[in-house]
Amino acid sequence: MFKNVEHIGIAVKDLAQAEELYSRLFNILPYKRETVASEAVSTSFFKVNETKIELLEATAPDSVIAKFIERKGEGFHHIAYEVNDLLSEIERLKGKGFSFLNEIPKKGADNKLVCFLNPKTTNGILIELCQEINQ
Amino acid sequence: MFKNVEHIGIAVKDLAQAEELYSRLFNILPYKRETVASEAVSTSFFKVNETKIELLEATAPDSVIAKFIERKGEGFHHIAYEVNDLLSEIERLKGKGFSFLNEIPKKGADNKLVCFLNPKTTNGILIELCQEINQ
Repeated sequence: MFKNVEHIGIAVKDLAQAEELYSRLFNILPYKRETVASEAVSTSFFKVNETKIELLEATAPDSVIAKFIERKGEGFHHIAYEVNDLLSEIERLKGKGFSFLNEIPKKGADNKLVCFLNPKTTNGILIELCQEINQ
Repeated sequence: MFKNVEHIGIAVKDLAQAEELYSRLFNILPYKRETVASEAVSTSFFKVNETKIELLEATAPDSVIAKFIERKGEGFHHIAYEVNDLLSEIERLKGKGFSFLNEIPKKGADNKLVCFLNPKTTNGILIELCQEINQ
């Protein structure tokens, strides 16, 4: 089951500038910064009720975020839905004609297991499914 | 105050095809369809907990959605935040350097008063603020 919109990922060129902008917009400060070395991104998180706004800056020229900004400019990068049971959702969606960029969930930011649907099967939108890691 | 992510607007070429896709994805059906003549769009709404996914199809070649798709292709179009007090947020944000496409709120889909921030002041992202109309 899809529980909620867990976060919305926004690709930015300059994380400090974007943090300042979103702080002015929301009238709150980011609650967390985190670098995900495996994805070559630095992230900054704001929270608007149950949904996080995740600002993403590339930390290397070959980062997916650097390539995205080259191709499309700054802006919406992906939407992440939290699900109850990631493995069973992957199986359900495969049976419904969706494919995945990674069928085997990997560790993402914010203590989550994540996988991404192939945008070719979702009208070009990059969709992440995630589930909190129980510790 | 920003209450929540009220909806995410997604521009699509073919509303029926996109409805079918999102029904398979979420495993639910759209709960509402609505045409907003003043904006020349047909919309279809899904709900994932507190956030709606609003699919937007142009109903005329000069619709903002038709122009968006021509320029950028299908995909994320805007993000809408629900606020407690739209007029006071507009004033606060003007004081913080943001400008608006419409400073005077207008009636949007789903029984809401809405206004849009000027994307030139928000790193290119189209941001809607909305407030439920009390009846």
